[in-house]
Amino acid sequence: VSVVAENTARNAAFIGLDWGTSSLRAYLMDASGVVLAEERRPWGIMQLPPAPQDTADTQAHAGFERAFDDICGTWLQHQPDLPVLACGMVGSAQGWKEAVYLDAPASLDQLALKLTRVEHSGGKHLHIVPGLIQRGALPDVMRGEETQVLGVMATTPDAATLLIGLPGTHSKWVLAGQGGIAQFTTYMTGEVFSALRQNTILGRTMQTQADVAPDDAAFMRGLNVALSGDSEAGLLSQIFSTRTLGLTGALSGAAQPDYLSGLLIGNEVTSLVKRYAGSAPEIVLCGEADLCRRYALALHTAGFAASRLAPQATARGLWQIACAAGLVPEI
Amino acid sequence: VSVVAENTARNAAFIGLDWGTSSLRAYLMDASGVVLAEERRPWGIMQLPPAPQDTADTQAHAGFERAFDDICGTWLQHQPDLPVLACGMVGSAQGWKEAVYLDAPASLDQLALKLTRVEHSGGKHLHIVPGLIQRGALPDVMRGEETQVLGVMATTPDAATLLIGLPGTHSKWVLAGQGGIAQFTTYMTGEVFSALRQNTILGRTMQTQADVAPDDAAFMRGLNVALSGDSEAGLLSQIFSTRTLGLTGALSGAAQPDYLSGLLIGNEVTSLVKRYAGSAPEIVLCGEADLCRRYALALHTAGFAASRLAPQATARGLWQIACAAGLVPEI
Repeated sequence: VSVVAENTARNAAFIGLDWGTSSLRAYLMDASGVVLAEERRPWGIMQLPPAPQDTADTQAHAGFERAFDDICGTWLQHQPDLPVLACGMVGSAQGWKEAVYLDAPASLDQLALKLTRVEHSGGKHLHIVPGLIQRGALPDVMRGEETQVLGVMATTPDAATLLIGLPGTHSKWVLAGQGGIAQFTTYMTGEVFSALRQNTILGRTMQTQADVAPDDAAFMRGLNVALSGDSEAGLLSQIFSTRTLGLTGALSGAAQPDYLSGLLIGNEVTSLVKRYAGSAPEIVLCGEADLCRRYALALHTAGFAASRLAPQATARGLWQIACAAGLVPEI
Repeated sequence: VSVVAENTARNAAFIGLDWGTSSLRAYLMDASGVVLAEERRPWGIMQLPPAPQDTADTQAHAGFERAFDDICGTWLQHQPDLPVLACGMVGSAQGWKEAVYLDAPASLDQLALKLTRVEHSGGKHLHIVPGLIQRGALPDVMRGEETQVLGVMATTPDAATLLIGLPGTHSKWVLAGQGGIAQFTTYMTGEVFSALRQNTILGRTMQTQADVAPDDAAFMRGLNVALSGDSEAGLLSQIFSTRTLGLTGALSGAAQPDYLSGLLIGNEVTSLVKRYAGSAPEIVLCGEADLCRRYALALHTAGFAASRLAPQATARGLWQIACAAGLVPEI
């Protein structure tokens, strides 16, 4: 073990895990929440590390334990008592252990009170952040995003109410203030885009070029179709234009993915216009950089005031919850 | 060859082919357009019969010729000069030979004037019906449905204008009168349903039971969500409720496919409401029986007057076009 690693571990006070469907990240933090080290693995809950050759797992949690040991076992060797807090799909029914859904609206303190403890067969343990459920005729749920939102709020002035956009496979729009998370809505925009592109006729004429800059003109063209009030035919019809504009030579195969992306994000933003036009709180975007850039473009085009970009905030959110739960000593 | 088959062939005057992406149907008709025999094969343009063992096709049309010979070769043995007319994706760029797109609006006579002739290497030939294109900011196209619509119009009183719904993988809504096809719109409803069910997280909690009656209550529930004005979050958000209603125990896995179907068909019908509410011409549905029943339910719930069901009309449409093109002698 190098001197650097030993010093790093010696100052550590907390490990946070961002554990989703397709990836796992670990943050080693000191007693004031500063990130000392960060690790990343492909061990999402749907692709855990396999059992050693010629053996088979007898217990469902074995794969989760291997992933856990692989990403933060070294850190824990130095300080076996470091508290560990995880958020995301690791707390789902398909995860390591099912964590409760807390009813929204919910505050930081309410979330911190309802952590789910998981025992590791090696004698260690960790905690999992609850998910949020919003009940009603059409319920909505989140797991992981609540932590990201609390991270964003930790760097926001006291009085502010924010509309936080988290674009991605399932993009979430969350209304939050210092009281916590008030309301949220999920849009399956990213996953629908992938399914249309990979599994419908629309993909057949698309050309995908690796390492080519996004085609903003094509994106804006799709966006404007979605935002224009006269496209009364709706999304199920609009998307067919990706193909017909190709057939008529008006949209190249290379431009079709960005055009379809504009159509879909435009439909999502149209719904925000219906809900918030003229009365939107400050908008903050948090997610993958180029996707946030597209959403910012879409929001601006739809008439919203400039949106602010927040850096990835899950590590900060895990720290906030750990403090509120008393997992780490207050300085 | 049986006596029946010989007699059938002797009275024959025309062969019509309904040749789509996933299936091929052939109709043998007499000199007054009565169907004498019907054959069906799985030889859609994407799944043509393979080359004989240990051989490889050197020409792209070989598979089309094998499919053609397999489905109507026997009929042509008896009467090699029978005229043959095909419609559908066989005339697309991926088909046997690309047939022109005619600009909509288009009449029966205009379609009949623009048939594309295809030579068969065995010395026979056939004709392909043109597709239709509707130009504009968002172009739309059809191949095969124009023939179906002309078939429906052939049994409709002279003065009538109809709104003809053709539900399916890509459902089409066509405004037609005796002057021909005036206007049409495509909705990718069926294909989006399949992609969401097979290729997104929504499919994971769905249970599919073979030979179980459709769950109309679940369908109506999804339909009412889509039709209710207050679902301002839009389709990309609404579909997520298929999963969340399952998570909260409010919608069984077996009911989820029908609920999602109701959501999607409801979105399609919502767009018809925006376009035609209060001023819709008579509505006729033409397609697979249970799907038409669902659309009839959806149209009724959305406030449209009762819709009429038309039997499958492609054979009738092929006959109409063959007569107008002079392929068959007038009686």
